[in-house]
Amino acid sequence: MSELRKDPIGGRWVIMDTDHPNKPEDYEYEPHTFKGGTCPFCYGNESMTPPEITAIREPDTHPNTPGWKVRVVPNKFPALAIEGDLERRGVGLYDMSNGVGAHEVLIESPYHQKDIPELLNQEIENFISMYCQRAFDLRRDSRFKYIMIFKNLGAAAGASLEHSHTQIVALPMVPKNAVEELKGAHNYFEYRERCIFCDLIRQERQEKERIILENELFLSFCPFASRFPFEIWIIPKKHSGYFCDVASIPQGIPALAAILRETIARIKKVFVDVSYNFIIHSSPVNGDGGRESYHWHIEFMPKLTRVAGFEWGTGFYIATTPPELAAKYLRET
Amino acid sequence: MSELRKDPIGGRWVIMDTDHPNKPEDYEYEPHTFKGGTCPFCYGNESMTPPEITAIREPDTHPNTPGWKVRVVPNKFPALAIEGDLERRGVGLYDMSNGVGAHEVLIESPYHQKDIPELLNQEIENFISMYCQRAFDLRRDSRFKYIMIFKNLGAAAGASLEHSHTQIVALPMVPKNAVEELKGAHNYFEYRERCIFCDLIRQERQEKERIILENELFLSFCPFASRFPFEIWIIPKKHSGYFCDVASIPQGIPALAAILRETIARIKKVFVDVSYNFIIHSSPVNGDGGRESYHWHIEFMPKLTRVAGFEWGTGFYIATTPPELAAKYLRET
Repeated sequence: MSELRKDPIGGRWVIMDTDHPNKPEDYEYEPHTFKGGTCPFCYGNESMTPPEITAIREPDTHPNTPGWKVRVVPNKFPALAIEGDLERRGVGLYDMSNGVGAHEVLIESPYHQKDIPELLNQEIENFISMYCQRAFDLRRDSRFKYIMIFKNLGAAAGASLEHSHTQIVALPMVPKNAVEELKGAHNYFEYRERCIFCDLIRQERQEKERIILENELFLSFCPFASRFPFEIWIIPKKHSGYFCDVASIPQGIPALAAILRETIARIKKVFVDVSYNFIIHSSPVNGDGGRESYHWHIEFMPKLTRVAGFEWGTGFYIATTPPELAAKYLRET
Repeated sequence: MSELRKDPIGGRWVIMDTDHPNKPEDYEYEPHTFKGGTCPFCYGNESMTPPEITAIREPDTHPNTPGWKVRVVPNKFPALAIEGDLERRGVGLYDMSNGVGAHEVLIESPYHQKDIPELLNQEIENFISMYCQRAFDLRRDSRFKYIMIFKNLGAAAGASLEHSHTQIVALPMVPKNAVEELKGAHNYFEYRERCIFCDLIRQERQEKERIILENELFLSFCPFASRFPFEIWIIPKKHSGYFCDVASIPQGIPALAAILRETIARIKKVFVDVSYNFIIHSSPVNGDGGRESYHWHIEFMPKLTRVAGFEWGTGFYIATTPPELAAKYLRET
């Protein structure tokens, strides 16, 4: 018989197939390959993007020319516009607002053919510190309530360009799933006066069976109520509400770069060239913080299955590989 | 500038691209085609499925032989097992339960090559009345709290078999998104003493621009805060909490069959052979009803785009065709 497992933060139930779990070889997926061709994110094509917002550059190189290591540009087709005041209004029983926000693209490296595991640790540290720098900068704008940093790699994961990049979206409201996670974590905190994520880390380190990797500051593990096969969370072991605080912890960015690189390298050993998404979950900005009760982390999802409409329509998932088994493969690879 | 729109029931925000909306020809999708071959849902192959639970049959034909019009069988690879008591328990801070539930497959017609628009109205009425019959039967089992009826058509929509069929899942708990919708509708009801869906229908019929079709009992329209391009809701115009009550309304099933057939025919005229999902949203069973404040409806989603992980990770959607434009195409086709 399968198991039903409840996500302790958001309250979502997942049907976990513990009876006939899928092994890695049971998944058919569309691999992500780098084909090359004219790419707006490669050296020499800087004029194909909107003018850069900021970059980490070799000395004496100029904006919008080669010589950069990490480059941030506005999204050419932004979902939200940076100018204007937020005007919320009602239309009968509906609520709406104009689309104020920011939508940036962060090009992680100049190398078209390289994903995170192929980069040097220093190169990963560069783009993580740029994540933090953009988050710091955007949260100074009081119109923004949430900074969402996420990466889609590969067409199967929703990427429209193959050169590895991250998107940064600043939103004028906290997105629904973040609200729910914050509420779940807040309720637990009110009841126990402890952070639920800190308790969860304690339990995972005791039970060990869902852990993939651990270093001095971070843990990577497959969550108990994984929605997707081989879903992975990367979380700081010490309590921290905001992602960008990692920049102020000694060795924070190097430790995060190291575990991110090694975790993705392992998933790509088990699933060669798999497409994936990751999302950085952090406390909202410019408002009710959640600094005490919420704990930032990265949720990583390899794209191994097609999600049927009913799963996002109902919030009800069927997971075909239990996290204990997934973690075992990822530990032992 | 784009618009931000809020779903009035669940509270989800959607970024709506009203500036540069996508037209139907802008979508590339994977069409669903019926290839044939040995199919466990075709006449003569009845022994390839588990023994049938029930069927609508020609007179004098026997179970598990040809001659059926609609056939219901247990899912060969059930996500949940029908036997056993529900045992909820905690494991440290996690909650879990054994996987008790039902997982049935309803084969809508014997015709391998036909989807709903190609069936006769009477044939559609047959399988809708079977939906109701199964829902009635399953809700007599007090272990079950929610009956989920949904259809995936085409591999792109998550179907593993191409012969058109519907899945029926009976769950021992109410799924998260249903809980949220119920709560949203309940809060509105407490405040206004009216059903939010009834108000929404009133507003849609006044504004007209999002309506596709209407008959005496049902409305089909593109919702204000559509998450997906060309998302469609089909809803009874009179208040009704439970889907299966449609069987007791005079002309209820024929009117639903007619609008379902015509709506899907229209979407398939605009997007030939498109894959799709639909989910019947209804009040929970065997518990707190929502009979007064919730209003059953069908949510229909053609599979035109790839949803990136971040969308179901965050509950934050970017919709590339506003519902006003989608409804116009579907009305005028």
